[in-house]
Amino acid sequence: MDKKMTLLMFSGDYDKALAAFILANSAREMNIEVSIFFAFWGLFILRNPEHGTMEDKTNFEKMFGALTPKGPEDLPLSKMNFSGLGKQMLLEMMRDDEAPRLIDFVEGARKKGVKFYGCKLSMEIMGLKQEELIPELEVVTAETFIQEALESDIQLFI
Amino acid sequence: MDKKMTLLMFSGDYDKALAAFILANSAREMNIEVSIFFAFWGLFILRNPEHGTMEDKTNFEKMFGALTPKGPEDLPLSKMNFSGLGKQMLLEMMRDDEAPRLIDFVEGARKKGVKFYGCKLSMEIMGLKQEELIPELEVVTAETFIQEALESDIQLFI
Amino acid sequence: MDKKMTLLMFSGDYDKALAAFILANSAREMNIEVSIFFAFWGLFILRNPEHGTMEDKTNFEKMFGALTPKGPEDLPLSKMNFSGLGKQMLLEMMRDDEAPRLIDFVEGARKKGVKFYGCKLSMEIMGLKQEELIPELEVVTAETFIQEALESDIQLFI
Repeated sequence: MDKKMTLLMFSGDYDKALAAFILANSAREMNIEVSIFFAFWGLFILRNPEHGTMEDKTNFEKMFGALTPKGPEDLPLSKMNFSGLGKQMLLEMMRDDEAPRLIDFVEGARKKGVKFYGCKLSMEIMGLKQEELIPELEVVTAETFIQEALESDIQLFI
Repeated sequence: MDKKMTLLMFSGDYDKALAAFILANSAREMNIEVSIFFAFWGLFILRNPEHGTMEDKTNFEKMFGALTPKGPEDLPLSKMNFSGLGKQMLLEMMRDDEAPRLIDFVEGARKKGVKFYGCKLSMEIMGLKQEELIPELEVVTAETFIQEALESDIQLFI
Repeated sequence: MDKKMTLLMFSGDYDKALAAFILANSAREMNIEVSIFFAFWGLFILRNPEHGTMEDKTNFEKMFGALTPKGPEDLPLSKMNFSGLGKQMLLEMMRDDEAPRLIDFVEGARKKGVKFYGCKLSMEIMGLKQEELIPELEVVTAETFIQEALESDIQLFI
């Protein structure tokens, strides 16, 4: 029987997103089905910096959109970010080891058939539009996450 | 057979608590049994601002009690709190979408029969008394969480 | 049949590590098999302050090593750390209740036969050498975590 992993990607930190996408890519290589449900800050990982829009947004939503990360490589670290200096240090160390960047792992996950879900309520509250995120994102409610998690062998809140 | 979800609510952030209680309420609506085990900062979500007490507390416990959130609506955001400004922005955006507040989701969970457990060790260390928290809280050890988690289809550390 | 718990220890916070090791020790006392996979900041929990090395490290790795915690008792709190003051307050409250410190729970887990895994990629990127961490650590890839998690009754990302 096929195995399945479901992640609830709540955090919008570069390091935590990296952990989630390394797990997602590794699991796909092991032929495990993978679903990721993006909620709250996690949605900013999927933001496409070239598809931002100001249409149909309240002032708070516009302000919030301007203050939040513009895509995967714009995310801060969960620790030792030091206004971006700590993150630059991490990126340099990753480059020295020829480790892929977050954006590469996100691309890998898309190519490997990871299922992307976006939390409807979070998107409505923060004013994020479908077209600002990656195109394969399916917008669903918490019920879909719970249904997928029930059928999974591994579920993690990240 | 009945399905079950067990959450370990460790964080005391407004946004993470919101995520946990949205999951708990959705799961109950799907007839899934739900237990939440509150430990460390998570206990402050259940603090009743009208039932604070100073009795039988050490000076450190009093100081700690004074520096920590006074209930669900007093919790900070995990990100972009900006001394409360970011949280106000989030609350305004939630109001615009007529989304319930955290305190409403906590009430919903109580009415829907979510089981509330409090971590005995955390409460002893931080000097939190049973009467300062919601009345249906059952104070238990980590063993109870593990037992409940073993019987669950979904377990998440939040 | 034997039950099993697998933790992914990503965070390097004193309070979250405490939660993880309390769970690990309790589970072992219940005869549950326990594996912990240490990644990113979680690796600093296992750093031995007496076994630091500067050999075979890039300048970034040396700088990173100097800026990060030197072992379990050197970790900050995830909240209210206040440059260490909040943590001292927590430690005083723990002492008043005669609660063991993190380092004691780590020792307990080692004696009780908890399995320790270290994430190979994280160690390479951050320049952490096997000899700087506890000796029983087995260095593995994300695949090992997924394999262990698939066989587990409880899996948590902490």
